[in-house]
Amino acid sequence: MKLICDGLDLSDAVLKVSKALSVKSTNPVLEGIKLIASGDFLTLIATDMELTIERKIKADVLMEGETVVVGKYFVEFVKKLEKEQVELCRLNEGNLQIRYSDSESEMQVFPTESFPVIEKNEDGEYLSLKQSEFKKIIDRVVFATSADDSRPILKGCLFEIIDGTLSVVALDGFRMSVVKKNIEASGNFNAVIPSRTLLEITRLLDKEDQNIKIILQSNSLYVQFENTALISRLIEGEFVKYNHILPTSFENKVIVNKQLLLNSIERASIVAKNDRYNIVKFDIKESVMTVSAKSEIGFVTENVNINLDGKDLTIAFNGKYLVDFFKVIDEDFVSINLNSHIDPCVLKPVSDEEFLYLVLPVRING
Amino acid sequence: MKLICDGLDLSDAVLKVSKALSVKSTNPVLEGIKLIASGDFLTLIATDMELTIERKIKADVLMEGETVVVGKYFVEFVKKLEKEQVELCRLNEGNLQIRYSDSESEMQVFPTESFPVIEKNEDGEYLSLKQSEFKKIIDRVVFATSADDSRPILKGCLFEIIDGTLSVVALDGFRMSVVKKNIEASGNFNAVIPSRTLLEITRLLDKEDQNIKIILQSNSLYVQFENTALISRLIEGEFVKYNHILPTSFENKVIVNKQLLLNSIERASIVAKNDRYNIVKFDIKESVMTVSAKSEIGFVTENVNINLDGKDLTIAFNGKYLVDFFKVIDEDFVSINLNSHIDPCVLKPVSDEEFLYLVLPVRING
Repeated sequence: MKLICDGLDLSDAVLKVSKALSVKSTNPVLEGIKLIASGDFLTLIATDMELTIERKIKADVLMEGETVVVGKYFVEFVKKLEKEQVELCRLNEGNLQIRYSDSESEMQVFPTESFPVIEKNEDGEYLSLKQSEFKKIIDRVVFATSADDSRPILKGCLFEIIDGTLSVVALDGFRMSVVKKNIEASGNFNAVIPSRTLLEITRLLDKEDQNIKIILQSNSLYVQFENTALISRLIEGEFVKYNHILPTSFENKVIVNKQLLLNSIERASIVAKNDRYNIVKFDIKESVMTVSAKSEIGFVTENVNINLDGKDLTIAFNGKYLVDFFKVIDEDFVSINLNSHIDPCVLKPVSDEEFLYLVLPVRING
Repeated sequence: MKLICDGLDLSDAVLKVSKALSVKSTNPVLEGIKLIASGDFLTLIATDMELTIERKIKADVLMEGETVVVGKYFVEFVKKLEKEQVELCRLNEGNLQIRYSDSESEMQVFPTESFPVIEKNEDGEYLSLKQSEFKKIIDRVVFATSADDSRPILKGCLFEIIDGTLSVVALDGFRMSVVKKNIEASGNFNAVIPSRTLLEITRLLDKEDQNIKIILQSNSLYVQFENTALISRLIEGEFVKYNHILPTSFENKVIVNKQLLLNSIERASIVAKNDRYNIVKFDIKESVMTVSAKSEIGFVTENVNINLDGKDLTIAFNGKYLVDFFKVIDEDFVSINLNSHIDPCVLKPVSDEEFLYLVLPVRING
């Protein structure tokens, strides 16, 4: 293998694929980046067997071939190269020689044949939507996934397509995010996509007004950008029947300014978070909601003006779950939809019918 | 105690004094901020017994008095207050009541009498220089102090004033920074100032072209800014006789472009730092210096053009120590002054006679 390429192209490609490098693997070759020189291109591939990222850059290939470099060192080294031509050459004894200006370096490599072969399957069901819309959906949903390994299905987001409507759902047992959106799709299907995969896809998006096309097979996902491809395993198993959790009607509806309520909850949380559950209490009475919290370090009591359609109610939540929701919406006003102090509560941005957030209350005494 | 003050003034003052809060102390009151309402001012004080920071803000004092709040929570809470009037009131049972808009909170306090009394002594020797000059000196010296508790004297910088020339010196047993500067001073004296104190002083500087006046007593330091005062203990003991370490003449002088050499050393360090000492080798030969490093992950060999006055030489250093020096200087060219491969090396910015940096070489085989 011998080729000449642009240092900046190489550095950009190495950084992009490095997101799929395995950090601590029992198989060291998964900490490597495979380089393939063929035709007019250098292709770089990294995989941890769950997520695979592949990127092609233009190269002047003098001799076709392939090798696997140690990802961590190659990333660091290439980042430090200035804007210059870089020559990569696999030496007879195996090492990779890197030449630039009138300098040269050599790096140890892994045996090429030990790098796994990742199947790239471009057939399957597909869904397609604007990159900017995809990013907005992921921002609003992925934070509600669980980090708990004991229920792997909750570490992903459900993508469910029914008659051209995409529903994306994440939940962790305490709260749930649901976004609905009309999109282009090949049919009715569903899949549970790991949250890490979704975040890596949003990081690769670079053309807001162009579409992203996600291809789904029974157990894997495939996305192709201009010179980058991403392949990911899906999470197997049945997702929670989220429609069963959603209340169908509400007795009380509160409209409130998001920023004012967020500020009050954040101040109350400083006192509350000394407590294990970060409990913030809400006393809803006519046109005022009193936000309060109490612990051994002191107490906070704040009044926030509201518009109430329904009857007075006292309810408590883990303040963190409300703050998480407020931080992902741009809208100025939210509606808080309630039944009783023990029933799930549903929050929505007032001017956006596509997003809803369910949170379970915390039982308190008195 | 009862007063009304501006929320932004309060938030700014609390953040400034909080740098002197004790993090883990056997005496919990040192995690508190003392508030004193008197005359037209609220004074805030925090101390960990080594460093004390005091700041005054304008206040409408309705009842004079004092209290000690829990620093961590008060900092967080005050940061979240919007731009509004804040009323602070010490209640009869002891707690501090905080009122703003139509909300109120209460925070637990420490017993006021348990907070230590810090003597403020404005007499003593003094030195005075432009804030911008002080900051530049500290940037160039403080990184070379030791973090090792076994020799406390090396955790500070020597300030030595002889006939209007200030020498500031820091060393850690492997390298040494020395800056000399003509300044205004009350006489000849010296002191060893903790590096943490010096960094906190630079963070409080806000008027680049005005002077800073540092007052030194036998075991403490006092600096007064507009509404802020800083008091610090000095480090006791005899500083290393730094003049004895400095070579008086050099057989070899290399002039080199800083950025080119820095880039080469950084790339070499990626390979070298796998090794415990981060050893980078320099082969100086006529007009070229070859920078190289080698470990089990590979090797780097780079050629950097130089101007050599002297004879060929091979020498090795811990790459990190050289990188630290290059990162604090703005100048484009540096001189590297050498005798043999086992003698200390002195680096200087070519166009700045006030700064020198000494670094010990590493012995290598062959």
